[in-house]
Amino acid sequence: MSIYDESLKLHEQYKGKLKVESKVPCEDAHDLSIAYTPGVAQPCLEINKNPEDSYRYTNRGNTVAVVTDGTAVLGLGDIGPAAALPVMEGKALLMKRFAGLDAWPICLDTKDPDEIVKIVKAMAPGFGAVNLEDISAPRCVEIERRLIKECSIPVFHDDQHGTAIVVLAALINCMKLKGTSPESQKVVISGCGAAGSSIIRMLYNYGFHKIYAFDIDGCVDPDKADSYNDLKKELLQYVNLDHQHYADLAEGMKDADIFIGVSAPRIVTEDMVRSMHKGNIVFAMANPEPEISYEKVKAAGAYIIGTGRSDYPNQVNNLLAFPGLFRGALDAKATKITEGMKIAASMGIASLIDEKDLTPEHIIVSPFDDRVVPTVAKAVGDAARKEGVVRKD
Amino acid sequence: MSIYDESLKLHEQYKGKLKVESKVPCEDAHDLSIAYTPGVAQPCLEINKNPEDSYRYTNRGNTVAVVTDGTAVLGLGDIGPAAALPVMEGKALLMKRFAGLDAWPICLDTKDPDEIVKIVKAMAPGFGAVNLEDISAPRCVEIERRLIKECSIPVFHDDQHGTAIVVLAALINCMKLKGTSPESQKVVISGCGAAGSSIIRMLYNYGFHKIYAFDIDGCVDPDKADSYNDLKKELLQYVNLDHQHYADLAEGMKDADIFIGVSAPRIVTEDMVRSMHKGNIVFAMANPEPEISYEKVKAAGAYIIGTGRSDYPNQVNNLLAFPGLFRGALDAKATKITEGMKIAASMGIASLIDEKDLTPEHIIVSPFDDRVVPTVAKAVGDAARKEGVVRKD
Repeated sequence: MSIYDESLKLHEQYKGKLKVESKVPCEDAHDLSIAYTPGVAQPCLEINKNPEDSYRYTNRGNTVAVVTDGTAVLGLGDIGPAAALPVMEGKALLMKRFAGLDAWPICLDTKDPDEIVKIVKAMAPGFGAVNLEDISAPRCVEIERRLIKECSIPVFHDDQHGTAIVVLAALINCMKLKGTSPESQKVVISGCGAAGSSIIRMLYNYGFHKIYAFDIDGCVDPDKADSYNDLKKELLQYVNLDHQHYADLAEGMKDADIFIGVSAPRIVTEDMVRSMHKGNIVFAMANPEPEISYEKVKAAGAYIIGTGRSDYPNQVNNLLAFPGLFRGALDAKATKITEGMKIAASMGIASLIDEKDLTPEHIIVSPFDDRVVPTVAKAVGDAARKEGVVRKD
Repeated sequence: MSIYDESLKLHEQYKGKLKVESKVPCEDAHDLSIAYTPGVAQPCLEINKNPEDSYRYTNRGNTVAVVTDGTAVLGLGDIGPAAALPVMEGKALLMKRFAGLDAWPICLDTKDPDEIVKIVKAMAPGFGAVNLEDISAPRCVEIERRLIKECSIPVFHDDQHGTAIVVLAALINCMKLKGTSPESQKVVISGCGAAGSSIIRMLYNYGFHKIYAFDIDGCVDPDKADSYNDLKKELLQYVNLDHQHYADLAEGMKDADIFIGVSAPRIVTEDMVRSMHKGNIVFAMANPEPEISYEKVKAAGAYIIGTGRSDYPNQVNNLLAFPGLFRGALDAKATKITEGMKIAASMGIASLIDEKDLTPEHIIVSPFDDRVVPTVAKAVGDAARKEGVVRKD
């Protein structure tokens, strides 16, 4: 049975993947009078006096709303909010399994960014944090930015930053293994959507300053800025700082040290990999089919290879990031998730392999490594406290 | 320790009352590939082809959104959405404990009925049903009606109809015990808010046609209709059909057979109870303090006494209604909850005491009676199928 048939069978058999359970006893009239009326009036009044007490007397501080509009679900595109539900249940399940969080799916039947922002803001008093999921670009960027600005709870769009955090974590260890520094590296990124933009920003902020970005229109080029939308214009702060006019991706990849693909299937050839600098690093992660297969990158002699798949070495898996990130943000009483907290998460993930244990086939740990969530959570919490983006209750 | 202190302690100790758990295994990479990517694409695609399959492959058909704006929480008034969370968690807990439902609190930071309607409609694809809770009158009536009309999933405002269903259930048994019919009974209802209006409609639709309603402005009177808001005007279809001009509640209660109070503390005296017809029925249920105490009604010689409290006989408790009602509506694939389904719920609850076992102290069962939820669910499901308000998937 294929993995797809097996999945369909599982979903039908269990009728979905989540359930709600009680944390308190509820067996008789006395239990009811404590957990519900009339006793429950007391925690209500305390929270009314001091809204921060909602974290003290309810489950709020352990909850995450997993919010989608179903417009960019997996590689399937705009399949709508109801069809996105299996993914959102899965995401909530991972939050529980890996970080003990209580996450609940919210699938919205609107594609209007204003509406989505309004709805998430309105729901915020009942949740500890918000994970935006599978919302199409560039709307997702606007929605997340407005929510971060206007909400007092952490808001994080995993499709933008989850992969970016893990790519940076992997590259930090690549730098250690190669004994070189980010400044020296020529980086080519294929894909400037949700994930690509965030990867570009994070790599730049960490210290990679020779970045060239490509999308369907070719090389992102400051001399073509007039034709770009706002999101792409913004990337000009981070990429192609020396105004290269690469004709195409193949020309851009010549002498590059690092290739990161979050774009489209089969757009990179073995020859393009061979044209890179010695000691080259290739992460081809387009979903469901990569820019170039692992086997071909291997045949072309790349030094370090990463993929998005669990059946090859060095899986760049966002599951390494989001559970610990939310755990850390909630435990630290963070009011937002900043660029600094994301970079701290990357450094935390990278730190889990001792320098002496690094090999080209082992630059990143497995998400099933028990140390991942506590390490990421601690790094993120420390960064939040250092930046002062925490509640004082 | 008071019940209030005990409740505060419980809420702090457990940090709220709800948690999310997984229904499926999630222990290794294979489990992940089935419950999440890439396998999860298959149920997504099936639901995209046929949206009703969301009930087949997800938990949707067992879920209830418990939605509030925090404007009328318990007897505490407008305490805001965060302070309402302990009540919403409690409600969700009862849904699980009594009917196995997976309910999740949604506390909204807006009081605008248009906004609330928009938000709930937008969230509908991810939920099986919606329980509106603690929204102030008359906004709650407008919000519920619009949602019933515009949503394809059941929407039910418990504060309006929960008590009404149980009041009718109790009165059905009172009629059996007295050996009389609804048509013969003069009914006086004090309170025309959310609960009062729904009680009036349900009693009328069941067959009580001599109903007189009172609020702070006195007797609802067709000859004063010009000064009434829409909700109160609407009640004129059901009450005071013979155009009585009672000066006050005391005059209205003379020779009445039934008094139902959902209004204000201490507005009924022993003399008023004594002025009622022989075999009188008094349900004084204002919260937290009733229109007249149980002891005083008893001293005034009422035949059947009901209260809202668990420490007296005949507790009129909405817990008898909503768990079975949602269970039945979801299991029957109902698209709405109709007046007929509510009356069926009342009859189901009433049926749980054999006629020979009815006494003035035993006209209604305890919510801890295991038969309540299956009986109500079956009655509600049968009514939904009979009315044809069910999905065909």
